[in-house]
Amino acid sequence: MNLETIIRDVPDFPKKGIIFKDITTLLQDGEAFRLALNQMLKKYLDARIDKVLGIEARGFIFAGVLAYKLGCGFVPVRKPGKLPFRTIREEYTLEYGSSALEIHEDSIKPGEKVLIVDDLLATGGTALAAVLLVEKLGGEVAGIAFLIELGFLKGRDKIAKYPVSSLITY
Amino acid sequence: MNLETIIRDVPDFPKKGIIFKDITTLLQDGEAFRLALNQMLKKYLDARIDKVLGIEARGFIFAGVLAYKLGCGFVPVRKPGKLPFRTIREEYTLEYGSSALEIHEDSIKPGEKVLIVDDLLATGGTALAAVLLVEKLGGEVAGIAFLIELGFLKGRDKIAKYPVSSLITY
Repeated sequence: MNLETIIRDVPDFPKKGIIFKDITTLLQDGEAFRLALNQMLKKYLDARIDKVLGIEARGFIFAGVLAYKLGCGFVPVRKPGKLPFRTIREEYTLEYGSSALEIHEDSIKPGEKVLIVDDLLATGGTALAAVLLVEKLGGEVAGIAFLIELGFLKGRDKIAKYPVSSLITY
Repeated sequence: MNLETIIRDVPDFPKKGIIFKDITTLLQDGEAFRLALNQMLKKYLDARIDKVLGIEARGFIFAGVLAYKLGCGFVPVRKPGKLPFRTIREEYTLEYGSSALEIHEDSIKPGEKVLIVDDLLATGGTALAAVLLVEKLGGEVAGIAFLIELGFLKGRDKIAKYPVSSLITY
């Protein structure tokens, strides 16, 4: 099964001129969904991971399964104002503008090994913000896993210090 | 392990006077997260489910794992404007105001059995909107699974026609 062919191109979303990689066609195919997750998981089965961090919102889908399968806690990183308890925040720029991410200040303990998960690596701004949040809380980034990497945007350069994995590169 | 004691009460979120049930303390506890998911899963292991539908954003965390474990496709239901392909929409009222949900029109085939998953059943408005979206696409709602049910809001009455399960009731 070639996962790449199951992902749908949607032109002009969210803005004119952008070809959006729509992963819902992969998600809704049970066999493709399972295969993608098993492949993402494979790289971390023998790693020591304490927490799996999912980036809102599509990152939650993959991070939840990885946390469950690795027997780890799941930590959500969310847009401002969504997390109810005390948070720390990191501003970042992204492919289509700028934004910020928040994490609960009690979600990661110093020294914990954290796997960061998102669906897509574009410019790397979101991933770098997540890395900085983990490190502010004293956690260690053990890896950053994506389903898709838009290689031409060179997001990997921003997070080159960390082990980065992606299943599909465009 | 008593899951109920692991969920944190956050007063005055998102509005003054509301006591918010913060599930992040459960999510970040690997053992509690696994136990909660295994209990949610147990009810559907022998059911015929074709698709698991997750409601943005916290529903994604649970629905992803249930879809993976049941070997089904995962279908996201999202806030307006988030899904890139052609969608249908359902307006609804919720505990703190009103909103709308969208689903991709090709995400469910007529006759497919759908398990709807979210973290919390409050007034039932969100769940009912998800039910109506599934039925508009010709799917059959095989069940609606929540982690938490706020029994005093009587949301279950709105979706009484369908098999509803929740792990923790307040």
